Amino acid sequence: MRDLYHEELDALTDRLIEMTRLVRSGISRATTALLDSDLQLAESVISQDEEVDRLFAEMEASIFDLMARQQPVAVDLRMVIAALRMGTDLERMGDLAEHVAKVVRLRHPESAIPPELRATILEMGQVAERLVTKTGSCIASRDVESAMEMHGDDDAMDRLHRRLFKILLADDWKHGVEPAIDVTLIGRYYERYADHAVRIANDVVYLVTGSRPQDGVL
Amino acid sequence: MRDLYHEELDALTDRLIEMTRLVRSGISRATTALLDSDLQLAESVISQDEEVDRLFAEMEASIFDLMARQQPVAVDLRMVIAALRMGTDLERMGDLAEHVAKVVRLRHPESAIPPELRATILEMGQVAERLVTKTGSCIASRDVESAMEMHGDDDAMDRLHRRLFKILLADDWKHGVEPAIDVTLIGRYYERYADHAVRIANDVVYLVTGSRPQDGVL
Repeated sequence: MRDLYHEELDALTDRLIEMTRLVRSGISRATTALLDSDLQLAESVISQDEEVDRLFAEMEASIFDLMARQQPVAVDLRMVIAALRMGTDLERMGDLAEHVAKVVRLRHPESAIPPELRATILEMGQVAERLVTKTGSCIASRDVESAMEMHGDDDAMDRLHRRLFKILLADDWKHGVEPAIDVTLIGRYYERYADHAVRIANDVVYLVTGSRPQDGVL
Repeated sequence: MRDLYHEELDALTDRLIEMTRLVRSGISRATTALLDSDLQLAESVISQDEEVDRLFAEMEASIFDLMARQQPVAVDLRMVIAALRMGTDLERMGDLAEHVAKVVRLRHPESAIPPELRATILEMGQVAERLVTKTGSCIASRDVESAMEMHGDDDAMDRLHRRLFKILLADDWKHGVEPAIDVTLIGRYYERYADHAVRIANDVVYLVTGSRPQDGVL
């Protein structure tokens, strides 16, 4: 039987996984809202972000409480420090999904995404979802190999991001400056979302091995 | 006389202040490099960012070590947790200065900043420097009032950011899409730099009072 202390440590993992679930739902709905100019869906992403923030605030408070009472050392200390970092990244991923949703709201009933960019944005959304899903699995399994594999998905995001700029800068771009600005910011939000997912994967590696990968190499 | 434990806690403060100094120098030189299209200066920002990363990695390691050996509680525990968060934000501010410098490198010998935007970018750079300078002072003094005042400077950054978009979207914008994309990203980097400075100020408030301001209100 687990004692209270280890139950509390396990609860941190559960909270982090719950956060990945919310943050995944956020980016998934933000992408759909963006492609369908769906204001109601966008609003739901914006209001749901508060829940992510609340979960993180609760987790931070319980970590502080746990540290003060139990004074964890070694692998347990690594766990609480990693949980603080991962929570910070997940909270930021929630913000980024919210930023995408706010562009939808700003441009509604128009679409922020010109037709020739729809496929790229759809793919960026899919890669973001894949990354956050893997993030949740890695936190649960603490599997270093899958965590390291996430760098490959991040490379896919970087390729999509470059493709997006190529379309924006092509001679036949006919939508002018405003949509180019929107798409530049949206692209940046997806790219950052992926970066944070990879940081979490790196923290899973740190948790298990005690060292953090640099540029995808352990 | 201070004991070793408290000397180690004080050393965290010194390291954070050293990081603010480096990160201030980074954004200051990045802004000058941007306005003067100075490649050499831009390269110096890019290479100096490694020093910020190294300082942060050392600080993280010493915090982990300190926690494992000394098991701080109460205000000391708050200090080490706040130091981890502040260090994360400072490291990110260094990255953002580096991002600005990389745009300079990408466009050199051309300038990324069209003439009508120079004044706004100069001001954004000045606000960023003011914020990071105040951040350093707040970390040193732990003065809650000055920390809360930083929200005013962040509002100034938001106003400059809106002015930048207004210029990009004006009918007489004649530079096309590529400079608009560069300026959109650069504007975002300065805005995020300011956000991170305010997060640090909020952590100083947390350190002293035990609670963190929400939207500039304690």
